[in-house]
Amino acid sequence: MPLRMSSLFVRSLKEDPADAEVASHKLLHRAGYIRRSAPGIYTWLPLGLAVLRRIETVVRQEIERAGSQEVHFPALLPAEPYKASGRWEAFGDLLFELKDRREGDYLLAPTHEEVFTLLVKDLYGSYKDLPLSLYQIQTKYRDEARPRAGLLRGREFIMKDAYSFDLDDEGLDASYHAMREAYVRIYDRLRLPYVIVEATPGAMGGAGTEEFLYPSAVGEDTYVRTAGGYAANVEAVTTVAPEPVAWTDTPQAHIEPTPDTPTIATLVDAANAQQPREDRPWTAADTLKNVVVAVTHANGEREVMVIGLPGDRDVDLDRAEGTGRLGDGEIAVEPATEADLAGLPQLVKGYIGPGISLEEPFLGLEGASGLRYLVDPRIADGTRWVTGANQHGHHVFDLVFGRDFVADGTIEASEIRPGDEAPDGSGPLELARGVEIGQVFKLGRKYAEALGLTVLDENGKSRVVTMGSYGVGVSRVMACIAEEYHDDRGLIWPQHLAPADVHIVATGKDASIFETAEALTAELETRGLRVLLDDRPKTSPGVKFGDAELLGIPTVLVVGRGLKDGNVELRNRADGTSADVAVADAVAAVVDQVDAGYALVGDSRTTYLV
Amino acid sequence: MPLRMSSLFVRSLKEDPADAEVASHKLLHRAGYIRRSAPGIYTWLPLGLAVLRRIETVVRQEIERAGSQEVHFPALLPAEPYKASGRWEAFGDLLFELKDRREGDYLLAPTHEEVFTLLVKDLYGSYKDLPLSLYQIQTKYRDEARPRAGLLRGREFIMKDAYSFDLDDEGLDASYHAMREAYVRIYDRLRLPYVIVEATPGAMGGAGTEEFLYPSAVGEDTYVRTAGGYAANVEAVTTVAPEPVAWTDTPQAHIEPTPDTPTIATLVDAANAQQPREDRPWTAADTLKNVVVAVTHANGEREVMVIGLPGDRDVDLDRAEGTGRLGDGEIAVEPATEADLAGLPQLVKGYIGPGISLEEPFLGLEGASGLRYLVDPRIADGTRWVTGANQHGHHVFDLVFGRDFVADGTIEASEIRPGDEAPDGSGPLELARGVEIGQVFKLGRKYAEALGLTVLDENGKSRVVTMGSYGVGVSRVMACIAEEYHDDRGLIWPQHLAPADVHIVATGKDASIFETAEALTAELETRGLRVLLDDRPKTSPGVKFGDAELLGIPTVLVVGRGLKDGNVELRNRADGTSADVAVADAVAAVVDQVDAGYALVGDSRTTYLV
Repeated sequence: MPLRMSSLFVRSLKEDPADAEVASHKLLHRAGYIRRSAPGIYTWLPLGLAVLRRIETVVRQEIERAGSQEVHFPALLPAEPYKASGRWEAFGDLLFELKDRREGDYLLAPTHEEVFTLLVKDLYGSYKDLPLSLYQIQTKYRDEARPRAGLLRGREFIMKDAYSFDLDDEGLDASYHAMREAYVRIYDRLRLPYVIVEATPGAMGGAGTEEFLYPSAVGEDTYVRTAGGYAANVEAVTTVAPEPVAWTDTPQAHIEPTPDTPTIATLVDAANAQQPREDRPWTAADTLKNVVVAVTHANGEREVMVIGLPGDRDVDLDRAEGTGRLGDGEIAVEPATEADLAGLPQLVKGYIGPGISLEEPFLGLEGASGLRYLVDPRIADGTRWVTGANQHGHHVFDLVFGRDFVADGTIEASEIRPGDEAPDGSGPLELARGVEIGQVFKLGRKYAEALGLTVLDENGKSRVVTMGSYGVGVSRVMACIAEEYHDDRGLIWPQHLAPADVHIVATGKDASIFETAEALTAELETRGLRVLLDDRPKTSPGVKFGDAELLGIPTVLVVGRGLKDGNVELRNRADGTSADVAVADAVAAVVDQVDAGYALVGDSRTTYLV
Repeated sequence: MPLRMSSLFVRSLKEDPADAEVASHKLLHRAGYIRRSAPGIYTWLPLGLAVLRRIETVVRQEIERAGSQEVHFPALLPAEPYKASGRWEAFGDLLFELKDRREGDYLLAPTHEEVFTLLVKDLYGSYKDLPLSLYQIQTKYRDEARPRAGLLRGREFIMKDAYSFDLDDEGLDASYHAMREAYVRIYDRLRLPYVIVEATPGAMGGAGTEEFLYPSAVGEDTYVRTAGGYAANVEAVTTVAPEPVAWTDTPQAHIEPTPDTPTIATLVDAANAQQPREDRPWTAADTLKNVVVAVTHANGEREVMVIGLPGDRDVDLDRAEGTGRLGDGEIAVEPATEADLAGLPQLVKGYIGPGISLEEPFLGLEGASGLRYLVDPRIADGTRWVTGANQHGHHVFDLVFGRDFVADGTIEASEIRPGDEAPDGSGPLELARGVEIGQVFKLGRKYAEALGLTVLDENGKSRVVTMGSYGVGVSRVMACIAEEYHDDRGLIWPQHLAPADVHIVATGKDASIFETAEALTAELETRGLRVLLDDRPKTSPGVKFGDAELLGIPTVLVVGRGLKDGNVELRNRADGTSADVAVADAVAAVVDQVDAGYALVGDSRTTYLV
């Protein structure tokens, strides 16, 4: 049965949604693919569901090719496993929490590591059961503070999440590699451009992770790349530390009054005026600013500490989170609040510094402040700084790292800038925006340990299983495909993902036009094509063409004016071409064009009959 | 790729779940089809998911054949539409409610009438857009007080819900009929026995409804049927009222002391001893008991009222609910509580009666008690009763309905008993148990009115749309199929719904056995069959055969001992037969048996490639 515009539940709309900023949001709404039910929560209409199912099929086929088996977990889960892993707390406001009628704590799962771990623990117990890979395509929930851009950041969304279970690290490496390869095939088959970037594990914890990003200005993620092939999420970039400098010629550190220097710029001016360097003028990069932050540890403890970084760099606390450098993987790092500072009268606001000599440190675990002190890697041995003197209106000059002060460690908490050096030496970094469409994670033993997933090995000894976790944002991917394939007039789906293979537009008043369109529809259906037929008897040609362009099925067959000369018009919305074809040749021409579209990614129409 | 027992994520278990009472729960658990995540909440394992998908395909194909279009709604919905319809209150504790981070009220939808209504209101506005039918297969949530029996009554479950939209009652009748026919086809294709019974609308509201019940002793629903073809849910049975009786010969009503008559039986004995009837002895059916109940109306008001019924009948308040006789369709009826009674000192516990004469009524809106009074239809004109005299230790005798007391109306609130007359005159009722597997509803204009769904008619006049709602409990249906098709040793799936077409069991030590099994697997796969191969090298034949019986794929091919004679054994778990087949003929024999299984319901294997 063809889809018929006369009865299909779809309405093309002229107005964009009030809050729409990006093309995919506007077009999927206006073309009647999705409809908003609440902020970040959408209903799938028939055409939207058809495209979604195609994307799911691609994902399912490639994940199963990688040896993963499909299961399906509830969305509504008891809180206990998430309390055991620490994520009931760690997810914070992102969790939709609720109670059942017996006052039991439940959640709408944002991701399923805990319960997959428990399921395998429940049924498996021997090294012979491993390796194992399980996946599901399932609805997830995250109570985003700012749901935006339609399907790009929803509060209810569809995700493919897979989990691997291995006996040892080599096994995990192999599982991770297999899934990463499956992801490459998935995005290739979806014709969605992507970059694979190093990432940081964040609240997930774990050992190593990469993200698949769709490069796009509408993305919320910033990543870096170099001409030499390096790519990373900004959180994952490591700063190239300068070589140690000899400090033999550097003058003794000295405290000077610095009135009226409320900003780095005024401090630099004052420094050049009062205490000029012998070799070159001071710059903002020679000032050391010390930022007080509060770290929430996985066990819930809040630690106030100080981060030192060059004064010319903005602080980027996202980069400090989840790097494992602050004690563990599950932390929040935020600016210290007034309440945090109230308990620390020893800090002189605007003039915090590490102290003037190694004998009398102020910051650092050995220092008078008692606060942990981590510094940007640019604060390297022998580097020379202007910084706060821990007295109001005074700074220290010529303070040398290693000679006059030390830190408890380094931290990545400075912004990344274009032109910074890539850590692998492949050249200066470029910054770009992208949408996260997938992530592959080596979780390691974190969840297995927290929830007691062990197996007996060959020698009957209990061993903790090592895990990986692998996500594809299925509904978000659909939005990205719409971002990538559209023009001013509407969507332009890749042929194999379109909600129908061909859109037949019957325009005109002559009964023979509609009869021919019906006959071609029937013939194309016997050839196995999915047809959308615009059979509306009284709708104007302009509206019909406009709808065809908005809906975005790439192969359009127009049965209209040309019919009196025995011709129909075959359009290809993907390349903008069109050609008159004799009615007798129309079916073959349509089949050829459609099949060529599938062949672009190595598929055929039967690939989707599964 | 075949499923292989050596790597398939399944474990057959020896133990039933602790709380399991019914076969489907035990077997789906023990065979590794589902796994409990929380009370009434299950995870689908690979084999369970495979069967579920088959059932979904049958449902989808038949619903679409009836002209319905698939959409997909969120499970997480804002509360407002449900507040507007009154169901936020009416569902009570059944609703899973939650708040988002902005303190907005949300729910996990138990059913979707409200939002389908709003969606159509959102996009449609003309009579030309109708009729319309939409459906989804989606996860629903109900916080059942006593989730039980595995998938039979879950708190998270999969439902197909469809909604029809029509301009007028004739349209609704046609839509209802089309969907009812689709349901007949669905359950026929699923090979699930069913009865169609009249039902009451309950909290849904609406005009007419029928239920599809799977007849089974494990069912929670009681229904009635007659040899003459009548069938109804007990809630929907109407009592056949007796013909009016002349009261000319009935003695005057009189109050008598009746000490020591705490039960109906002792009252009947006392009546026969003290006040014998002239014609026959008094029986329990001659006593009139008056039960105080509390009715919650849709607007939230609680009304205490009295129901009168023959003393030989238990009260059945479920029958009083949702019949529309108590003021509206959205009510709860429960026994009055101590708190309700505390405010009504005029009621003498154990001796409540309607009063002794029409001039001085006690019950009824005109009576001294001020309480509404509804009676069982058996309390007909001229019937003669013994009942409470509204004084401690006293009853009234020879109280005649119509002569000495009246009521505000009748109510169906008595239990139905085997042998009661069917309302259509088709004979005595039989009682039976069943599982509700589907329901078709004429909702009428209730939701459209509450939420403002109107269209303009041919004359440009606004008209309220009339709706129907149609549900199939998809996951529950799977449990019912397991109930219907199993034996002591395990499941026996209908061939076309089985998770694989054939289960090949390779047993023995000879390498040629496994090589032959692999070769037959490959050959059957090229013929398009889905194969589950038990390739476990060291598992005993007993375990393999036990697993094959438990898992329940009806076609089993054993490659074992007989191979030295060139034979394999083809078993049919459905009819218990088995036969030796030459290896060379095995593929053809398997294909024949499998295809015969599909053909039983008119399907072929390609029916499921969609």
